[in-house]
Amino acid sequence: MIVVLKPGLTQEEIHKVVERIESFGLRAHLSEGKERTIIGAIGDERLLADQTLESFPGVEKVLPILKPYKLVSREFQRANTIIEVNGHKIGGKKIHVMAGPCSVESKNQVLESAVPVKEAGATFLRGGAFKPRTSPYSFQGLGEEGLSYLAHAREVTGLPIITEVLDPRDLDVVYRYTDILQIGARNMQNFKLLTEVGKLNKPVMLKRGMSATIQEFLLSAEYIASEGNRKIILCERGIRTYETETRNTLDLSAVPILKQLSHLPVFVDPSHGTGRWDLVPPMALAGIAAGADGLLIEVHSHPELALSDGPQSLKPDKFAALMKDLKKVAEALGREI
Amino acid sequence: MIVVLKPGLTQEEIHKVVERIESFGLRAHLSEGKERTIIGAIGDERLLADQTLESFPGVEKVLPILKPYKLVSREFQRANTIIEVNGHKIGGKKIHVMAGPCSVESKNQVLESAVPVKEAGATFLRGGAFKPRTSPYSFQGLGEEGLSYLAHAREVTGLPIITEVLDPRDLDVVYRYTDILQIGARNMQNFKLLTEVGKLNKPVMLKRGMSATIQEFLLSAEYIASEGNRKIILCERGIRTYETETRNTLDLSAVPILKQLSHLPVFVDPSHGTGRWDLVPPMALAGIAAGADGLLIEVHSHPELALSDGPQSLKPDKFAALMKDLKKVAEALGREI
Amino acid sequence: MIVVLKPGLTQEEIHKVVERIESFGLRAHLSEGKERTIIGAIGDERLLADQTLESFPGVEKVLPILKPYKLVSREFQRANTIIEVNGHKIGGKKIHVMAGPCSVESKNQVLESAVPVKEAGATFLRGGAFKPRTSPYSFQGLGEEGLSYLAHAREVTGLPIITEVLDPRDLDVVYRYTDILQIGARNMQNFKLLTEVGKLNKPVMLKRGMSATIQEFLLSAEYIASEGNRKIILCERGIRTYETETRNTLDLSAVPILKQLSHLPVFVDPSHGTGRWDLVPPMALAGIAAGADGLLIEVHSHPELALSDGPQSLKPDKFAALMKDLKKVAEALGREI
Amino acid sequence: MIVVLKPGLTQEEIHKVVERIESFGLRAHLSEGKERTIIGAIGDERLLADQTLESFPGVEKVLPILKPYKLVSREFQRANTIIEVNGHKIGGKKIHVMAGPCSVESKNQVLESAVPVKEAGATFLRGGAFKPRTSPYSFQGLGEEGLSYLAHAREVTGLPIITEVLDPRDLDVVYRYTDILQIGARNMQNFKLLTEVGKLNKPVMLKRGMSATIQEFLLSAEYIASEGNRKIILCERGIRTYETETRNTLDLSAVPILKQLSHLPVFVDPSHGTGRWDLVPPMALAGIAAGADGLLIEVHSHPELALSDGPQSLKPDKFAALMKDLKKVAEALGREI
Repeated sequence: MIVVLKPGLTQEEIHKVVERIESFGLRAHLSEGKERTIIGAIGDERLLADQTLESFPGVEKVLPILKPYKLVSREFQRANTIIEVNGHKIGGKKIHVMAGPCSVESKNQVLESAVPVKEAGATFLRGGAFKPRTSPYSFQGLGEEGLSYLAHAREVTGLPIITEVLDPRDLDVVYRYTDILQIGARNMQNFKLLTEVGKLNKPVMLKRGMSATIQEFLLSAEYIASEGNRKIILCERGIRTYETETRNTLDLSAVPILKQLSHLPVFVDPSHGTGRWDLVPPMALAGIAAGADGLLIEVHSHPELALSDGPQSLKPDKFAALMKDLKKVAEALGREI
Repeated sequence: MIVVLKPGLTQEEIHKVVERIESFGLRAHLSEGKERTIIGAIGDERLLADQTLESFPGVEKVLPILKPYKLVSREFQRANTIIEVNGHKIGGKKIHVMAGPCSVESKNQVLESAVPVKEAGATFLRGGAFKPRTSPYSFQGLGEEGLSYLAHAREVTGLPIITEVLDPRDLDVVYRYTDILQIGARNMQNFKLLTEVGKLNKPVMLKRGMSATIQEFLLSAEYIASEGNRKIILCERGIRTYETETRNTLDLSAVPILKQLSHLPVFVDPSHGTGRWDLVPPMALAGIAAGADGLLIEVHSHPELALSDGPQSLKPDKFAALMKDLKKVAEALGREI
Repeated sequence: MIVVLKPGLTQEEIHKVVERIESFGLRAHLSEGKERTIIGAIGDERLLADQTLESFPGVEKVLPILKPYKLVSREFQRANTIIEVNGHKIGGKKIHVMAGPCSVESKNQVLESAVPVKEAGATFLRGGAFKPRTSPYSFQGLGEEGLSYLAHAREVTGLPIITEVLDPRDLDVVYRYTDILQIGARNMQNFKLLTEVGKLNKPVMLKRGMSATIQEFLLSAEYIASEGNRKIILCERGIRTYETETRNTLDLSAVPILKQLSHLPVFVDPSHGTGRWDLVPPMALAGIAAGADGLLIEVHSHPELALSDGPQSLKPDKFAALMKDLKKVAEALGREI
Repeated sequence: MIVVLKPGLTQEEIHKVVERIESFGLRAHLSEGKERTIIGAIGDERLLADQTLESFPGVEKVLPILKPYKLVSREFQRANTIIEVNGHKIGGKKIHVMAGPCSVESKNQVLESAVPVKEAGATFLRGGAFKPRTSPYSFQGLGEEGLSYLAHAREVTGLPIITEVLDPRDLDVVYRYTDILQIGARNMQNFKLLTEVGKLNKPVMLKRGMSATIQEFLLSAEYIASEGNRKIILCERGIRTYETETRNTLDLSAVPILKQLSHLPVFVDPSHGTGRWDLVPPMALAGIAAGADGLLIEVHSHPELALSDGPQSLKPDKFAALMKDLKKVAEALGREI
């Protein structure tokens, strides 16, 4: 950590800053320039996570040098994390596609997606039973009933399931049914929920918050990891920008950056990332080309009747066509689907 | 709601869209232009909150005409909502300043802020016992112990208290201690938590999410109102933009817009809105000039030792000086503090 | 165009809005709903480009239905525009890679990039002689001298050149040397410059402004087209967001959207789009997968000595490796490089 | 400047970085930590404006310590710059309001604004004769004819005028007519234009670009100052964010920040900053409360017939009422209008 001092401090004022730094167990190293004096604070600057130095008298600004997260960082673990779920390995050479409806609406509706996505090559079934909806007047999901329909579709197709949990109080019931727990974008900084899933022994997919920086995203993953659960999948799903043609702006550069900074698998959700089914195929392909380990794609047999996110859902035939293109691109890059 | 059709549809295709609109109990009214045919869907378009029409075949786009929220809208209730808390009226002529430390750290530390802010004219004491922190390695708050220190400061100063609740499971304990419940920016779309506070009979301050539109903000307030609790205070606290000089960009235009669209009181938090104590006074003054009904300001007797948000906390003497300026501006605009 | 009226207007007030609409040569079509009356303004709403209706008494808001641009729209011309430059066809099956240094620094430095990028398969040479620099103290480019070095490299390698023009007063000299004129992101709304290049008979690459919407981008292209020059190449180069890991956020969803809305070729610039050479390969691959017709890539033989944009420049060997991967992905998707 | 090295470098690699730093005339000061070695580069880091160090082998990142601008900085000149125009002092105790129509449309239309704004207390007349319009089909301004109407209104009212220049080729004619040259937001990084106005001896109002950081804004002012012209007024006019209720998000925190970092006068434009006339009064008041030295306000006698920006123009009576409130707030804060 670099501490930049205001110009014109007395030796005594500088000494007080040095003392403060040393009180945290760090060493202070002074460099006096013509216009500014700076202090290098040497040691584990995470001890100073609360960064109170910025409000210390005489301090102009504080520049961190080290990353504030540790367990999820590539420096902590060089090798990619591989997560095994029902025999599938996530984070290795094989790219996984998790597909299915946005919301679970009925037993049949789930099957109508699950069967064709399985045939087309998807390896996981996605579907929401607890839904975070912007308006209180929107469909809020079927709850446990919805989970049971997912479980039924798993029995029929053999696809393991991934579904969202919104509330620590629902964690028991969701845990019983699902193979992967999903934390949605709106809950990326629901720290209580992160702490709870961190205590479980089940993979968690953590979606990037709508306006989360990559650093905040990794710190949220660190919340889970620091409780003991290291089976974390990161998912880029679009960030909020000024552009209105798309629901969000899919930040694909996050994929190679996350792969550099962290050892965790990285997925892309082109459905939420664009909000438009016609943009899902090009952005799914681009996600794979950017190095993603997997995709999360909304598929609905009748998008025009869907109770949520119809406009961004692919029909099964379009999904099957996309899977063929994805395979070609994956192979061109030395991976497989 | 206006439904814009794609060019070149057959009469039968148009008819199917009309049927779909009518199936929701709305009337369909066609206008045929040279380049596009549009349909006005007349009636309560909130029935279509799930907006599946956008994925209906032949539909190019859907333009809503009415606001998606109702109970919190100025159209629903013309007169300003006035919320009474321990004899204080929030939302009327008097502007309220809620001040105190970011985090509760000790019994003394709370008092060291509470006593001077009371003397300077603040009418409520703020302080956090459950803290949402970006890093798992940061101070997470004292929990119920912290609440008891706030209650103690209330006894000493007579100031009612406002404190944040993060988790539905903590609601009972926070409810017992606090006079106003605060929902933080990170939880603005924690819909389960909104639903729970909506069932209580205690005022709620709802802070705008870091990247929430004004419409999403009002929809989150609608979640609370639709459960029965109408004592809601809205708080602008800065939005995320590309600018890095400030922690957030305080969007003061949200104040007059919220006052137009809604009957609820509107506060401004210049501490989180800027992240810098030196910007708190000008932005507090600007907030009042823009029409805010109150302010939320962080005050700490020793910001350089604070366990959170030191850089944005005012010292008590600076806070007292600000209160004098605030009074002058409030009076110039026909209000009082 | 839909004109939404405020609630509670008298018939006379409504009539005045109707008259105003008709004064522009449009037809007005009323729909009276329970909560709002709306008017469909039928005809060429581009006649109302100045949108004064929003400030007409009684009008709540105006919702455009048609796109405000015409000549560059896919509706105006179904088939892709193919631009021929020295025998190369841009916008067809073949993907073009334009590569070279950010700034022209010397005759040798240009050659040191031009020769290896030609060998690796690039079809155009890029390089800046007039440089838009954020600081007045940064290197501003060699001007005409730089153009002559580019021309020399063209002679040696046979690669046609693309270079930026900043000022209408430089247009003559740049025109004499270059094969494609580039309008940079900072000049996307330099309407005088757009108008001038619109009068020329030479292809123009127009880069998206740092915070331009897709609609504004296409309106800037319309400026060029409306003066007669239809040889326009659009280039996505990253937009400004809150994320700080990258210099800009490359908005790859702009690629399929622009291809839908317009018939013009669409390029991607992963160098400016990320600001980091290590992110150029994954984002170049992703750009192709998203459907781009070409790439603009900065290559420098000694990035550590470059006078501008060193951190985002690839070395020739890394560029050659990337070209191999690009070919594989292009072929997988039925295109070629 | 702090240079952070990658972990695990050899002494020789470190030595090469040191040599490179010293080759620019700076001194290098090493600090070796447990996880990273950093080098303090001591001296005038503006010599390194081109920042090629980031791409030097072994360098992880470069953290600047000093501001990249100089002449416009508060460190260079402690006292506020006061600019005299026709006897008016801009930047002192008195707050100036510059008002008038967005576009000059006719001799009468200018007078219909100029006379009442003068009566209400405005001290300058604003109006555009060269207009930067998003669409080529919008009204582009009257050019020199418009300038002559402004000059006529100046004769009648005695108000000095401010008007925009878009193109270096128009600078002569605009210079002849106007008292203050305005550089609009879209041209904030039109460096050729900045350089040209920097050579003149006439005040320049520089508006912040739509997505410019405060640092980039000050660097653009530095372009003007470095050519010799120090009579620069900065103007905040709203930045682009995701919020759609307003045309831009007026960033009022920029006002106190610019006053801290620079000695130049700072204005606020609440008309462009919001895009809505009904938000102009609260945001004008807030601008003054935040410490602005003046305001730029659009006034039109018939906004519903305006050829540009009607929705954000105040009528003369509303402007007069606002001026009364502005005076009260200015006085409350020890200033005058």
